[in-house]
Amino acid sequence: MSAAWKEYQEKNQDRFLTEMIDLLRIPSISAKSEHKEDMLRCAEAVKKSLLEAGCEKAEVMPTKGYPVVYGEKIISKDAPTVLVYGHYDVQPADPLELWHSGPFEPVIKDGKVFARGSADDKGQFYMHVKALELMSKTNTLTTNIKFLIEGEEEVGSPNLGAFVAAHKDLLKADVILISDSAMLSMENPSLDTGVRGLSYIEVEVTGANRDLHSGTYGGAVANPITILSKMIASCHDENNHITIPGFYDDVVEAGPDERALINKAPFDEASYKSELGINELWGEKGYSTYERTGIRPTLEVNGIWGGYTGEGAKTVLPSKAYAKISARLVPNQSADVITKKLIDYFTSIAPASVQVKAQLHHGGEPYMTPIDSKGYVAAAKAIEKTFGKTPIPVRGGGSIPICSILEKELGIKIVFMGFGLDNDNLHSPNEKYNIENFFKGIETIPYFHHYFAQQS
Amino acid sequence: MSAAWKEYQEKNQDRFLTEMIDLLRIPSISAKSEHKEDMLRCAEAVKKSLLEAGCEKAEVMPTKGYPVVYGEKIISKDAPTVLVYGHYDVQPADPLELWHSGPFEPVIKDGKVFARGSADDKGQFYMHVKALELMSKTNTLTTNIKFLIEGEEEVGSPNLGAFVAAHKDLLKADVILISDSAMLSMENPSLDTGVRGLSYIEVEVTGANRDLHSGTYGGAVANPITILSKMIASCHDENNHITIPGFYDDVVEAGPDERALINKAPFDEASYKSELGINELWGEKGYSTYERTGIRPTLEVNGIWGGYTGEGAKTVLPSKAYAKISARLVPNQSADVITKKLIDYFTSIAPASVQVKAQLHHGGEPYMTPIDSKGYVAAAKAIEKTFGKTPIPVRGGGSIPICSILEKELGIKIVFMGFGLDNDNLHSPNEKYNIENFFKGIETIPYFHHYFAQQS
Repeated sequence: MSAAWKEYQEKNQDRFLTEMIDLLRIPSISAKSEHKEDMLRCAEAVKKSLLEAGCEKAEVMPTKGYPVVYGEKIISKDAPTVLVYGHYDVQPADPLELWHSGPFEPVIKDGKVFARGSADDKGQFYMHVKALELMSKTNTLTTNIKFLIEGEEEVGSPNLGAFVAAHKDLLKADVILISDSAMLSMENPSLDTGVRGLSYIEVEVTGANRDLHSGTYGGAVANPITILSKMIASCHDENNHITIPGFYDDVVEAGPDERALINKAPFDEASYKSELGINELWGEKGYSTYERTGIRPTLEVNGIWGGYTGEGAKTVLPSKAYAKISARLVPNQSADVITKKLIDYFTSIAPASVQVKAQLHHGGEPYMTPIDSKGYVAAAKAIEKTFGKTPIPVRGGGSIPICSILEKELGIKIVFMGFGLDNDNLHSPNEKYNIENFFKGIETIPYFHHYFAQQS
Repeated sequence: MSAAWKEYQEKNQDRFLTEMIDLLRIPSISAKSEHKEDMLRCAEAVKKSLLEAGCEKAEVMPTKGYPVVYGEKIISKDAPTVLVYGHYDVQPADPLELWHSGPFEPVIKDGKVFARGSADDKGQFYMHVKALELMSKTNTLTTNIKFLIEGEEEVGSPNLGAFVAAHKDLLKADVILISDSAMLSMENPSLDTGVRGLSYIEVEVTGANRDLHSGTYGGAVANPITILSKMIASCHDENNHITIPGFYDDVVEAGPDERALINKAPFDEASYKSELGINELWGEKGYSTYERTGIRPTLEVNGIWGGYTGEGAKTVLPSKAYAKISARLVPNQSADVITKKLIDYFTSIAPASVQVKAQLHHGGEPYMTPIDSKGYVAAAKAIEKTFGKTPIPVRGGGSIPICSILEKELGIKIVFMGFGLDNDNLHSPNEKYNIENFFKGIETIPYFHHYFAQQS
């Protein structure tokens, strides 16, 4: 079996790459309404790719927002079913001026494909499409495969919960398989045992009803930038511990065993810092870097703006200041609870000289998958087979808001088999995906299906 | 004499207004390089207006930046000379979306001209141009008049010092007259006894060498927005006292007499708040609103930006955050000293996890004019003549950075005879200048020349 897979992949993988790159050319940015047509075009392209790869059925299915692409290849009602989840939408490409090449004009350089969505998540879910083709064409399918490729992951999957609830039978499966995360490195393959939750809000602070001259009114009327800065500054104490009342209430502290395991993962501080161009690490006192990005909740300001931001100087006392702020959550924090705490915090600490509006952008619950679950075991075996090493279980820092909903609605566990790397520049300029990782993913995924079927 | 002036003004003032409005149509924004052509066009228009108003000579004179417009009408070498200073450049018009009509498409509504530059300062210096015409055409000139209309006031007059130093003979005069400020109200006319100085810097905070995914790196790498917010938050204590070391060292505290005078000026807190749409005043504890904007130095954030500021949500941990920050200075603070303190402060408090660059945009010294100086006395008499009330001496909150340099180079005092109002929306959307004030200024200015000549 493995010989046939190897042969088919070697013969076809240049085409796999070209096809994936074609998908990257579509600027499917779900956050920006001007890309609506691109989003629909991208959904159609995904559907087409599923049919070509061997799905007997594939459909672009409506939601209240952007459509979901569903596809399936059923080999037998007795075979176990793997539901592959992915997303065809991508993050905005701003700031454009920092890209070395166009975000939607993919460029191959040094063995990497540079384009928005290359790693997150088009390049990754497409490995599953091509793995299906590979198994289909070599007649080696051992599982039923269903695809659920959504278009709103980057805006918090606001409509996927309702879609899943309405299509439980269609989506019935034994495990959910997601490639939308990273591994430590090709030398130290890892599997995520969970993702953090997310609570994303926007805060608007209003002082006077219009921009004022900072000479005429400065010192006598509250400056919303100063007030917002004070609010943001107050969110962390001197140990970078989050000070929002009750923020940590529901956090399940990782035990000494899990912490020891996390800290056993290879971490080269010098190269981590040099790769990021920083002189010093930063973060919550008492925790290591992997703990800070894995087992601990965080609060980050994702954007801030107010007043004059153009060339030169303008002596304005602005009317408004804004910030986008998001928390990453860990078990058993709840996105709804934390969102309420964040909104309450920002509105309650506002001095009477300003008005504060705070509202939810989106949220998602944290999610953990047990390392003794069938899916995790199959993934670990597959990785071991193709990488020659047992993967290290790590907690993923990112968020896939829909995870907890998928499990709740479908009653099955999720396996995170990500083939990206931390330095893929996800959500940043010059996002890339290593071609080696793309090919390695296509090579590994069939083994997942094989081992999962064996266990079932 | 006054009858002739009245008659001439009544006959011609509609034209005066139309001409002034034509000048407002030129988007002479000195801060934005794309307006270079507009700047030069505006300088030529000012020169033309000076010649038409009665100057025997007017020139657009080069500097290292935008040119100065110089004009003169010499009646006699024995007559006292008044040097009128003004500026033909204007502030940027952003945020454009908040203007009710185009910033450079002047609209008359409710007796006000709405346009960028209407009050600051085209509408105000143009009163002097038309006052010259009025005196010239009625053969009632009692002083020599020189005009120094610059094009870089809104960017801190970086080249005017050198220009003045190089043309001391040309600019030789007995007093400098400036209309680039406001009075309390038409019912309570006032004269500024000074302007605050200015120290304007820009701060850039850099964390990682690129934008990062806030899930992958959040909590482990310093967020420049959070750091910048903490820096800004640290600049004021709980009493809104500025905490930058040594900031108040050189402040000459206003004495009880001056403070009593300031606080005698009519101030209707309820209407002040309602006009600005605020529930509460804000500012340094222990000082009244007029004290806060007059005798006290201030520190305001004029702009802030960093990370994702577009539609929707992007979970980015940004590489950079920026702020534009300016201090208003009072005697005897020095702009150079304060700028250094600000820059030192922001660079010294930066944690090692980030890099901070802070640099000067521009600065200017505070300036005070004695109320027993000839110029002030002449201005007070002129106001009394046309308003029927003795003007209240107040300290102006704004800054005209060139004042201290003008005095130093030319050895003469400055008189601030502003006809604007605090609610003119200077530096803000919907800047306006009341037509009544424009006409009243043209009516009052000839009396200034008359009384100044009488004293000399």
